[in-house]
Amino acid sequence: MSNAETAPSSAPRYSATGVDVDANDRLIASYRELAERARRPEQVGAVGAFSGLFDLSAHPNPTLVASTDGVGTKVLIAGLAERFDSVGRDLVNHCVNDILTAGAKPLFFLDYLAGNGLSEQRKIRIVSGVAEACRDAGVALLGGETADMPDVYQSGEFDLAGTIVGVVDREQAISGATIAAGDRLLALPANGLHTNGYSLARQALRLRPADGELAERRARLTAHLPELGESLADALLRPHPEYLTDLRPVLDCVKGLAHITGGGVAGNLERILPDGLGAALDRSAWSEPPIFDLIRRRGAIGDAEMFRVFNMGVGMIIAVAPEDEPALLAELDGASGIGEVRALQSGVRVEISGA
Amino acid sequence: MSNAETAPSSAPRYSATGVDVDANDRLIASYRELAERARRPEQVGAVGAFSGLFDLSAHPNPTLVASTDGVGTKVLIAGLAERFDSVGRDLVNHCVNDILTAGAKPLFFLDYLAGNGLSEQRKIRIVSGVAEACRDAGVALLGGETADMPDVYQSGEFDLAGTIVGVVDREQAISGATIAAGDRLLALPANGLHTNGYSLARQALRLRPADGELAERRARLTAHLPELGESLADALLRPHPEYLTDLRPVLDCVKGLAHITGGGVAGNLERILPDGLGAALDRSAWSEPPIFDLIRRRGAIGDAEMFRVFNMGVGMIIAVAPEDEPALLAELDGASGIGEVRALQSGVRVEISGA
Repeated sequence: MSNAETAPSSAPRYSATGVDVDANDRLIASYRELAERARRPEQVGAVGAFSGLFDLSAHPNPTLVASTDGVGTKVLIAGLAERFDSVGRDLVNHCVNDILTAGAKPLFFLDYLAGNGLSEQRKIRIVSGVAEACRDAGVALLGGETADMPDVYQSGEFDLAGTIVGVVDREQAISGATIAAGDRLLALPANGLHTNGYSLARQALRLRPADGELAERRARLTAHLPELGESLADALLRPHPEYLTDLRPVLDCVKGLAHITGGGVAGNLERILPDGLGAALDRSAWSEPPIFDLIRRRGAIGDAEMFRVFNMGVGMIIAVAPEDEPALLAELDGASGIGEVRALQSGVRVEISGA
Repeated sequence: MSNAETAPSSAPRYSATGVDVDANDRLIASYRELAERARRPEQVGAVGAFSGLFDLSAHPNPTLVASTDGVGTKVLIAGLAERFDSVGRDLVNHCVNDILTAGAKPLFFLDYLAGNGLSEQRKIRIVSGVAEACRDAGVALLGGETADMPDVYQSGEFDLAGTIVGVVDREQAISGATIAAGDRLLALPANGLHTNGYSLARQALRLRPADGELAERRARLTAHLPELGESLADALLRPHPEYLTDLRPVLDCVKGLAHITGGGVAGNLERILPDGLGAALDRSAWSEPPIFDLIRRRGAIGDAEMFRVFNMGVGMIIAVAPEDEPALLAELDGASGIGEVRALQSGVRVEISGA
């Protein structure tokens, strides 16, 4: 349902659909300016009024790596806090990390923003966040779509999803297939919930519409909490970091990468372990941001459930040969050795001591 | 916010996020079976637990062409009619047509389905439609994401968006740049609204929640209408066709393609006309499906507004040199010559006689 565009076709392709045609035209022009911030030389500007073009001829033997994702109900926290500039970064960085697990470098990104009654200013702030994160990660913002859908979304709410496409040389793709017993597992720290577990967090922290009047919930979200040293809004909206910048120089000695998203440490680490192998992790080897304990206490949530839903402070797990561990720990800021790979002894593939 | 997967990593990557973990696991398994229907040999199955991989090494000089789109409030018609198997086809075919305008052949697709309280069965029917349309168009369904977002979407409602990536040889990319005065404009017929104008159609046909009780609106949607020879549901849910199959053999002699989406015939044709050129179209040269006249009468909508919002029966406009017109008309089933390109004489770039 692309909308007509009148801007020159040399700009990135961006469309929007809504009732107000003039507002749409302004929005498309704004989006194009934002997308220009994240332009890459491979973008082909002269053609493609209905799509974005990206020249891949510099890659001799490309395997494309793609992923689509959303930021879940983190959008509701952004709306309640009236802070719209960070969820775009969450989205882009989540996607960058997802394809990084295959060793892929990102090429381009396309976003989808839909909602009900979101102001032009808010839409632009959301897409600004997308564009800035794209620029920072070296990803072209090749296109996107914005739609107004009154009877689909709740009043004032929106959803934000996106698709990333990257490239890896087939021989350099990371799959976890070479992981062996005795390999070490390193963690890169998470700075908060990233983009997972917001439905449970909103329930535990009483931030849902069912939990009170808007003003009351907004006050709960923005009040300074001594145990956090910040507000819930600050802790819950801290953007999902991208691990590409840190990991790019060391990818050659990485045997496997697990992005810790929904399903938690165990659920995601299992995805890269070859058959017959398990992992033993030491929970004391990484630090847990205080937001998790607050959610646990306020929601009276058991530890098993916490570990199933949240990353608990682990953003990315890196599997490496033991001899590579010291160099990687020295190279990667904030990384810690959290466990090792071992032959599978029981039905439990990932054991976390102290959890 | 990808969910953990336990299925073997040789299957396409599919994730879902929701409260019920067992239901999620079932859903992911179902999605993977569906995606297998649209598998292509270039898909790399052995790696990529967090992303989908696609081998592009057979393309010597690739330019990628990508587009993200949704199906707009056609999803509300599907929900009201309780027919969930066709909107996936709308989405895929819309995207196939968008990149076809650059001359691109589609490679792979990723979908995003989010909603509030959609049953497992309905989610599977929606994604089945996506998978079947992918298979029919020769597109790999490389991945996707499903999210349950209760306080974002209205109860029982959902949104469906997707991203397509295709490839074109840079030298064969179609841009409209060679279009010249005297070139002929051919139309491929639209079979209905495709994926545009549903908000106005729902208002005109009194199908919105504000227009009455659910049962009353559903009866209005499903009743047989003599002037249509079918129900509104049949007319409004007819899937957006893909024009790739028809146009693929003749792309070499096509100078420009305009996919008639939001913005209508004029708004979209303008996007491919070089500066200084306009177009004159003869409205009597194509036939208008009866649904448009019904919407016009019921909604008391002026002709200018109808042409701005709806495709009015024109699905795709093809710009060709005059000498190629007879061969293309003979080759393309249902195609008709609807006008010509001429030097721009006034401020009106696209004039439609009789409109």
